[in-house]
Amino acid sequence: MSDVAKVPREVNPEVIEDLGNLLGDRITTTMAVREHHGHGEDYFAAFPPDAVCFPNSTEEVAEIVKICANYSTPVIPFGTGTSVEGHVTALHGGITIDLMQMNAVIEVNPEDLDCRVQAGVTRKQLNEHLRDTGLFFPIDPGADASIGGMAATRASGTNAVRYGTMRENVIGLTVVTADGRIVRTGGRAKKSSAGYDLTRVFIGSEGTLGVITEVHLKLHGIPEKITSAVCQFPSTADAVDSVILTIQSGIPVARIELLDSLMMDWTIQYSKLDQYESKPTLFYEFHGSEANVEEQTNQVRAIIDEFGGSAFQWASSTEERNNLWQARHDVYHACIAQAPGKQGISTDVCVPISQLAECISETELDTKESGFDAPIVGHVGDGNFHSIFLVDIDDEEEMKRAKDCNDRIVKRALAMGGTCTGEHGIGAGKIDFLIAEHGEAVSLMRSIKKALDPENIMNPGKVLRV
Amino acid sequence: MSDVAKVPREVNPEVIEDLGNLLGDRITTTMAVREHHGHGEDYFAAFPPDAVCFPNSTEEVAEIVKICANYSTPVIPFGTGTSVEGHVTALHGGITIDLMQMNAVIEVNPEDLDCRVQAGVTRKQLNEHLRDTGLFFPIDPGADASIGGMAATRASGTNAVRYGTMRENVIGLTVVTADGRIVRTGGRAKKSSAGYDLTRVFIGSEGTLGVITEVHLKLHGIPEKITSAVCQFPSTADAVDSVILTIQSGIPVARIELLDSLMMDWTIQYSKLDQYESKPTLFYEFHGSEANVEEQTNQVRAIIDEFGGSAFQWASSTEERNNLWQARHDVYHACIAQAPGKQGISTDVCVPISQLAECISETELDTKESGFDAPIVGHVGDGNFHSIFLVDIDDEEEMKRAKDCNDRIVKRALAMGGTCTGEHGIGAGKIDFLIAEHGEAVSLMRSIKKALDPENIMNPGKVLRV
Repeated sequence: MSDVAKVPREVNPEVIEDLGNLLGDRITTTMAVREHHGHGEDYFAAFPPDAVCFPNSTEEVAEIVKICANYSTPVIPFGTGTSVEGHVTALHGGITIDLMQMNAVIEVNPEDLDCRVQAGVTRKQLNEHLRDTGLFFPIDPGADASIGGMAATRASGTNAVRYGTMRENVIGLTVVTADGRIVRTGGRAKKSSAGYDLTRVFIGSEGTLGVITEVHLKLHGIPEKITSAVCQFPSTADAVDSVILTIQSGIPVARIELLDSLMMDWTIQYSKLDQYESKPTLFYEFHGSEANVEEQTNQVRAIIDEFGGSAFQWASSTEERNNLWQARHDVYHACIAQAPGKQGISTDVCVPISQLAECISETELDTKESGFDAPIVGHVGDGNFHSIFLVDIDDEEEMKRAKDCNDRIVKRALAMGGTCTGEHGIGAGKIDFLIAEHGEAVSLMRSIKKALDPENIMNPGKVLRV
Repeated sequence: MSDVAKVPREVNPEVIEDLGNLLGDRITTTMAVREHHGHGEDYFAAFPPDAVCFPNSTEEVAEIVKICANYSTPVIPFGTGTSVEGHVTALHGGITIDLMQMNAVIEVNPEDLDCRVQAGVTRKQLNEHLRDTGLFFPIDPGADASIGGMAATRASGTNAVRYGTMRENVIGLTVVTADGRIVRTGGRAKKSSAGYDLTRVFIGSEGTLGVITEVHLKLHGIPEKITSAVCQFPSTADAVDSVILTIQSGIPVARIELLDSLMMDWTIQYSKLDQYESKPTLFYEFHGSEANVEEQTNQVRAIIDEFGGSAFQWASSTEERNNLWQARHDVYHACIAQAPGKQGISTDVCVPISQLAECISETELDTKESGFDAPIVGHVGDGNFHSIFLVDIDDEEEMKRAKDCNDRIVKRALAMGGTCTGEHGIGAGKIDFLIAEHGEAVSLMRSIKKALDPENIMNPGKVLRV
């Protein structure tokens, strides 16, 4: 929630001309398209790029970047536009590369549990493609984001507690560098000690070091048994404390999501869910063999008993599970329905699990004292939660109050050993928080940025001030 | 197995003087100490450093590096000296920093399953320290290596099939940069999207980007039940095919190690293990709850039946498990005993699991046709295996034959989508293989090296030719 400088560069018309020669009608300067590409799902002021390209191969991306490099023109990679920290806005003008026409699943190797996809493949598309293989790709950030965008922002979401984040599930990348070279990182071996870990350098680099055009992913076997359960608690502290004990006990739950009582209230209203009370609620998913799932659920049941949790509501079939999780899925729309015309802005701190109860309770108090009804939804198994502020972005006073409150939320999380962003990324909005969190280490990030993008054309104004 | 250039720099005597003023008697130029620090457990010609320092804090390491940087003097970090690719030899002279006096466990956070240690803490020391917490650190590369060295080489070993490698088990580092700054990377939150992944940049960088002085580690709960089993097979192909099916079935075995028939023959002779035959043999370890371990072993039993495996030999208590695994533990000594005076040199390729059977069988044929009895031991669950060549390093013809054979082994693995090093690292010996494996990506590694160590003083001559 910080301000961004408004210093657009002027783009040389020859760039557009050269790109036109390369791409024909797959480049456009139409204002509607440029405006659409000027923002993600965020509250940031939108800066449209000067043109939008739609390449259909890595080689074409390389040619586009070479042309842009030739004129020192900014390059902004764009997937589904679902990021929330201003990642895709063209702060300094330039050329947006929309990768959504690169949506081929290139190879699936069921015997090695891996696959390679173009950056524009979405996670739902991939799982649809994999349906007959008995395998799936677990990372689920909510939005049907592109795999390239998920890699670029080190996305995670509800399944990360068991399956990890993009960091753990990408084994290799194809990247176009700032000077237009095509580079393959990583490999298909399950482990390697061969040289620097370039794959991890690009994961989470948010388009500032190069354009990710292909992603090589780990896959997982679809569990024999998947069950869902929901449990309601007398207080947020009880719910969170039960999560802490669950994680500390090493129970491999696949998802464990918290909605606080306010969020439950709003989703019950929005989705007409009579079966629930407006109480802090945990949504679980268990994956494993029949016996293994039973073992996990018995262990969790014993824990929730300790903390006054209600009896589980259960579901096994896909349809029942979707119904049970309805409240969780409807969170965003339930919030928006509360305050039509307002914008939802989400915090994203993540703290060590031992600090989670305290962090959430202090945060709830702080948002309340700041005059907000800011419900909480959390990937609490990871220590990650979001407070949702509903704000009128044209109301300066309200925006300042929200910003000040978020500043405190981040500082509190950092003081507890946490991070300013569990999964949303730095983008244009959290550059100062990155410095507060990592201090001197940011200077090393800056050195890497300068080494790989000396002209600062790759998504300038994001992650770092160069 | 490649040659290294012999171009020692001259070290300015003032460096030694300045370091003496800083460290008093914790720097030495005694030849015996320098020679000890001039090599790891490798066959490389040893280049002793000009002096060896024994700092006892990160701040002291920073001061040492500043002095070295001031005189453009090479800096070589040193742990237990158990690396095998020439990582610690002072190719260009310089100052070795022996980190073994920095051996404090700084903090253990049982509730968050993490801990922070100084670089000189060894893995056995750490597990001894953790004994009463119910937690353990799983990575086991065989040697009782220092945690700092394990991070620097991205070590893994027998447990990686279940618990991952150092890449997955380090959450943060304290690093002294090439200009003597102290930088903390990563953090204690379970996930973060805050900026570039510097932790992973330094893991596997083999001392070429900075000196790792502290390591923040993930810990794991000691499983309720640990059992071991051993199974013998009619052929290597049968053994490996059963492993492939085990991994593809997603059975979470904690260890699954192969000894081929020649290796079994030698260990039976060496360790007088009458209970075994000289047949290809798999050694398993299962971790989990009582029920979970039973489920895993039943699944594996069904698989080995398909491939003509013998009945399991079983063990549950620590002592019985150690006895059962004796053959596996004695591999190195059993090899050396076969050819006194010869040196054991290990290959280290790792391939996608689907390629493992073919890769091992072609490798066995190749080593035989090259005139070597080169037994195989493998972390086969990861697709990683070692052929052990016994060579007289003064016999040029034999060394050339071994080198040529290893070249073919690596090329074969790369052609199968594998890596030249699963866990030993690049060091001084595999620089050309790194280029063969990663091509253009190596130029990005070189850019990062130049950005973080512009004077090339950090362990020069390793990983990259700058």
